[in-house]
Amino acid sequence: MSPSDVQRPICIIGLGLIGGSVLRDLVARKHPVYGYNHSTSRTRIALKQGFDVTDNLPEVLARAEADGALIVIAVPMNAVGSILDAIAEHAPTCGITDVVSVKSAVREQVQQRNMNDRYVGGHPMAGTALSGWEHSQKGLFSGAAWAITYDYADECDARGERVPKFWEDLFADVVRMTQMVHAEAVPVRVANHDAAVARVSHLPHVLAEVLAIVGDNGGILAQSLAAGSFKDGTRVAGTTPALVRQMCETNAPALVDALDEALHLLQDARDSLAAPQPSIEELADAGYRARTRIDARSGARKESVSPIKISSRPVLRLHPGAPHWVGQLRQSESLGGRIEIF
Amino acid sequence: MSPSDVQRPICIIGLGLIGGSVLRDLVARKHPVYGYNHSTSRTRIALKQGFDVTDNLPEVLARAEADGALIVIAVPMNAVGSILDAIAEHAPTCGITDVVSVKSAVREQVQQRNMNDRYVGGHPMAGTALSGWEHSQKGLFSGAAWAITYDYADECDARGERVPKFWEDLFADVVRMTQMVHAEAVPVRVANHDAAVARVSHLPHVLAEVLAIVGDNGGILAQSLAAGSFKDGTRVAGTTPALVRQMCETNAPALVDALDEALHLLQDARDSLAAPQPSIEELADAGYRARTRIDARSGARKESVSPIKISSRPVLRLHPGAPHWVGQLRQSESLGGRIEIF
Repeated sequence: MSPSDVQRPICIIGLGLIGGSVLRDLVARKHPVYGYNHSTSRTRIALKQGFDVTDNLPEVLARAEADGALIVIAVPMNAVGSILDAIAEHAPTCGITDVVSVKSAVREQVQQRNMNDRYVGGHPMAGTALSGWEHSQKGLFSGAAWAITYDYADECDARGERVPKFWEDLFADVVRMTQMVHAEAVPVRVANHDAAVARVSHLPHVLAEVLAIVGDNGGILAQSLAAGSFKDGTRVAGTTPALVRQMCETNAPALVDALDEALHLLQDARDSLAAPQPSIEELADAGYRARTRIDARSGARKESVSPIKISSRPVLRLHPGAPHWVGQLRQSESLGGRIEIF
Repeated sequence: MSPSDVQRPICIIGLGLIGGSVLRDLVARKHPVYGYNHSTSRTRIALKQGFDVTDNLPEVLARAEADGALIVIAVPMNAVGSILDAIAEHAPTCGITDVVSVKSAVREQVQQRNMNDRYVGGHPMAGTALSGWEHSQKGLFSGAAWAITYDYADECDARGERVPKFWEDLFADVVRMTQMVHAEAVPVRVANHDAAVARVSHLPHVLAEVLAIVGDNGGILAQSLAAGSFKDGTRVAGTTPALVRQMCETNAPALVDALDEALHLLQDARDSLAAPQPSIEELADAGYRARTRIDARSGARKESVSPIKISSRPVLRLHPGAPHWVGQLRQSESLGGRIEIF
């Protein structure tokens, strides 16, 4: 293990698209990693492919406990509670992270079980419309943001207390894990994360569903005339409804706020288009300006002709436990920056 | 000229992205074609590149009149009226088509000048966010739908009159022109066209603007966490506001109807998400079903592994003037089908 590698084995609970892809990347890096899939048939397939996996949850957690592994919860939100219960029983001292898309819901489950001091939340901003081990792949997270929550450290800091060493080490290892799969670790507190993804991930899904329905209502002629703008705008409506519901319903308060903003803009546009002198000037100008700003922010990544991807996220090289490191996390968060552990 | 080629020279008025791309494709096919650009500097560039173009409108129209050319109006909507006036003066007997994205607005201008009997509307469902001669390109229309309006023939038919031969020949040549640039001619009446594009082209633009603004409101952190769903959903917000306004404002009545449908769906989703038991089941299910139907309809085009593109639009081989040909157009329209002239 090099100092930039995770300093312990990794145990992944749930080997779907995300968990499976993490497993594949870590195996490729020759890091000690094993996992659990609740599906016996998929476990058999992965075993045949040479992966160290099992469908026995108590067994895999006992193994994690025995070798002090980092446990990665990669199951759907509705299974998180029961996995935490199993961890409490079979792996009572392991550090825990997760990859679920809404962080407040997971944190609530963690807090209910008093596991705050051994939990660091995570959320990779990557995926496809497909799910399951059979769609997992190497390189899925390359260049993607991977949100990492630090509310526990922030709360210690607010009370003037030092963050316990166990949590600092856990945080460092979670960041290292994202580096090992070539993602970019973005520190963010739970509430800010959930508000941000409501805008940039859950709202796009809701709008895509709406556009797909209104387009489909136009019948076969409208479909025949549909081109790029419609196809791009409806792509994520191809996501399994269960997945969309899990994301949107567990983040309902933040998503309702984002929807209210969208409804307000849309209603204004509708009214000014229905006026005697139809106009959409305000919305078209504001939308274009917004899009231009967004492009400018992510400019470095796109414009580079170098084969080496250059990140547009400002980097903070961090040493957990160093003076003011939690304040540095807050500063990095305010810039949407990424952190590296050294 | 082969029988499947346009049976006359083509004169393109306006050499932006669409007009310029038509010119390039027809030149590549060695069809007699020339054009007009109101920009002197861009005309010079095109001349140097060996294209037969001018910035003198009366002159190019007089030439069109002299050799009985098909005139293609490829200017923004707000310039259509003055171009029609110039055509009335300098090319009083030429057949006319256009490529403007809202057909009722153009038809109104045509009707005001009593030019119905020599006008066939057109609208290629292709383009990029870029505009101007410098972005025009060969192959832009390959496989794209090209809406062709036939209200004039439909009205003759409704009155039990035969469509005049001049108009039948014009219609055939406009279809042939779309074939020469490898587009697929989709016959459609003006009102149906405008209602359809409100759903599948103008609404996607409005939703993209809204999403860009709500995402941008989330600041730099939200942008840092934005991934594929946000990028796809906001792509067309990069379109010049003037272009968006021209499309949406000239099609205001149909777009307001589509917006009302979208607002209704969005408000329902918002309310069921704000309920004590947040749910987005109805929208997620309906959106997924819609998207699945859309994919199924355009399935043949995507799933084919053959290098030859197979169209998913049912084809009608048509002979303008044959018995019941206008009824056949209506039938093809109801299927979103394409027509070929033989």
